[in-house]
Amino acid sequence: MKVEINGMDANREALMQRCREMEKWHRLLMSDDETHLGGDFKGWVRLPRDIDRELVERIIETAEDIKDKCTLLLVVGIGGSFLGARAVIDALSGSREGRPEVVFAGFNLNGAYMSKLKKRIADESVCMCVISKSGRTVEPLLSYAVLKDLMFVKYGQEEGRKRIFVITDEKKGDLRREAYENRFKSFVIPDNIGGRYSVLTPAGSLPVAVAGHDIRKLLDGARSMQCGDWTAEGGLITYGAARTILQEQGKCLEIFEYFEGNLEYFGEWLKQLFGETEGKDGKGAYSACLFFSRDLHSIGQFLQQGRQMFYETIIRVAKSDEDAVIPQYAGYPYAGKTMEQINGCAEEGVVRAHRKAGIPINEIYVDGLNEFTVGQMIYFFEMSAALSAYALGVNPFDQPGVEAFKKEMKSLIEKL
Amino acid sequence: MKVEINGMDANREALMQRCREMEKWHRLLMSDDETHLGGDFKGWVRLPRDIDRELVERIIETAEDIKDKCTLLLVVGIGGSFLGARAVIDALSGSREGRPEVVFAGFNLNGAYMSKLKKRIADESVCMCVISKSGRTVEPLLSYAVLKDLMFVKYGQEEGRKRIFVITDEKKGDLRREAYENRFKSFVIPDNIGGRYSVLTPAGSLPVAVAGHDIRKLLDGARSMQCGDWTAEGGLITYGAARTILQEQGKCLEIFEYFEGNLEYFGEWLKQLFGETEGKDGKGAYSACLFFSRDLHSIGQFLQQGRQMFYETIIRVAKSDEDAVIPQYAGYPYAGKTMEQINGCAEEGVVRAHRKAGIPINEIYVDGLNEFTVGQMIYFFEMSAALSAYALGVNPFDQPGVEAFKKEMKSLIEKL
Repeated sequence: MKVEINGMDANREALMQRCREMEKWHRLLMSDDETHLGGDFKGWVRLPRDIDRELVERIIETAEDIKDKCTLLLVVGIGGSFLGARAVIDALSGSREGRPEVVFAGFNLNGAYMSKLKKRIADESVCMCVISKSGRTVEPLLSYAVLKDLMFVKYGQEEGRKRIFVITDEKKGDLRREAYENRFKSFVIPDNIGGRYSVLTPAGSLPVAVAGHDIRKLLDGARSMQCGDWTAEGGLITYGAARTILQEQGKCLEIFEYFEGNLEYFGEWLKQLFGETEGKDGKGAYSACLFFSRDLHSIGQFLQQGRQMFYETIIRVAKSDEDAVIPQYAGYPYAGKTMEQINGCAEEGVVRAHRKAGIPINEIYVDGLNEFTVGQMIYFFEMSAALSAYALGVNPFDQPGVEAFKKEMKSLIEKL
Repeated sequence: MKVEINGMDANREALMQRCREMEKWHRLLMSDDETHLGGDFKGWVRLPRDIDRELVERIIETAEDIKDKCTLLLVVGIGGSFLGARAVIDALSGSREGRPEVVFAGFNLNGAYMSKLKKRIADESVCMCVISKSGRTVEPLLSYAVLKDLMFVKYGQEEGRKRIFVITDEKKGDLRREAYENRFKSFVIPDNIGGRYSVLTPAGSLPVAVAGHDIRKLLDGARSMQCGDWTAEGGLITYGAARTILQEQGKCLEIFEYFEGNLEYFGEWLKQLFGETEGKDGKGAYSACLFFSRDLHSIGQFLQQGRQMFYETIIRVAKSDEDAVIPQYAGYPYAGKTMEQINGCAEEGVVRAHRKAGIPINEIYVDGLNEFTVGQMIYFFEMSAALSAYALGVNPFDQPGVEAFKKEMKSLIEKL
């Protein structure tokens, strides 16, 4: 990975100063001290290096067991118990051949969506994995309740319980009790890791492993960032520093951009990561995502000439080997070139046009999409988000605002 | 449809004043006068009522012909020649049973995406519909060139040409020449309708009709808005007026929200519509879309407590009949209730929590998702966007900023 920051030339000194502040926070996060702000939720910081290797093997074994049992794995979760696994599986082009399809549920309350899942449970060979750290989140637990009944009706209680897997808190919550009472196989999301930082815990790694991807390499990629050279020119801290300065200058929207359709859910994961980590006390930038060149033909006009209250972070993935040669076609000078070559020109063309328009752009270069590079990106953005939040003066690891709507919803349900 | 505006109480007088200004623009748009700003691109304004009924019948006949020929229709287009058709088909839950699957292409330059399409052309019975108003857009034309070759190899020239359909300008552009030379059946996007306002022209209606949806009803819905009572309390003009005032007050982000996953591409269509219509001369709001309750568990924290530079527009769709009853589940007071009932509580709960936080919310009520209501929404938002742009002082129908990146891209391609 390589990072290039454009549009900060006038602020070189401020950028250096901010980098130095962030390095202090970084050292604190990496330290054994847990008494600082957010110190009780930093389990993810040293996870890539310190993870229990036996746990990793147990996850892989369980994934193989699930693979042998079914053609369809339903993963029931929402927020951090959904986006991480989906982001990784999609970035790696879905399930590998011969592995179960992974379909997500529990992230909405649509009756029609549930009808479709019912039909698939009837028609296919199914396992289910329910994920909720608190074990109390309404959406996944209601979906779980409906789907568990269907599984038990189809497979009977004895076989059904062997097809359901639970990932939740070690001791607390209704889901832990369900796992105990039904003797479901289960894994733990550690106390000191919040939902949006949990993708490298079993919450992310079990579904990813079922899809046939190598979670050891995913961890290797993350570890390479954990143990990398943080202060290098163009590195993670520079990116974090640049974005906080841009926010302080009034840029209130960060637009993540990529030319890879497979990164759509990685973008959703980024939105949660930054939105929940920074978005409190009236602070933070709203995160939006654009898939180019699709969105150049819809949002391109606004970016070039609309209200300039945003900055861009473009994830530049080395072009894929899979390609198509363009045939002779009258009037076009493209014959013999490939789609990905033209795609590369579109990518570089956008960066140049936006730079000329004065838009601040952070460029993040990634060496293709595979387990290792996705692991790198995960840790890169997790650490950027945490350090940015510290620079903005907020606790990166709480989310006090999510209770407001839940309270209103609960009081409405009680009146039904 | 019904509209409720919250959070404008302090600005009642300004709102009324803005409504009166917008009514003037509305009258001008509806008039025969074409000399005013943007007057040469207002063909969409009276389209629902004035459309040539014979054209509609010809589109439906062609759609039936396509249906009889194939199980898969590839629709090749980008921007307004892609998002409208996809928005409508997705909102109506995809193709009806027994109709061809509609798959889109030409909106990206990914080699891997093209490989997948190649495989499908080999395995399935395929027709293709290529859409580009100018007939010169790089992405769809390159995809067309690759896919046409594959079609001709598979079916031979004589049968192949009966399976390719073209929608473009009446006279100009490379695609018009291709249609002429190959004797492809073709339809016209009128001169005076821009891409983002073209969903009710053949560019949208042919793919929608192939998917088995009734385009007469779609037009009926749009016509009901065209001929409706614009000035009614809580109507379209009030929504347009509210959003321009909010923008002038510094709210630079409009967040569209919905509890229906099927509206994802309707959201993408909205982003283009508002982004290109308003986003010039440093004006406009950036449009973002959220799917609840999925995104309440990722962006909810930011909305409730992050930087307050946004307003919300929530599309409240009457709840679906398709539903699932929640079984008995220890500790939860939901047994016997349905998913959609709980979904309704989540929806109302969010609105209440956000109102209490002081977030300006526009609520748009829609009576379910069917051809008629989708037609209503299309015209509602088209007219809102156009009137808002006039209120902001910009031409709603041009997009001068999209050339910048194309120019850079072109010069890079020439250097390849």
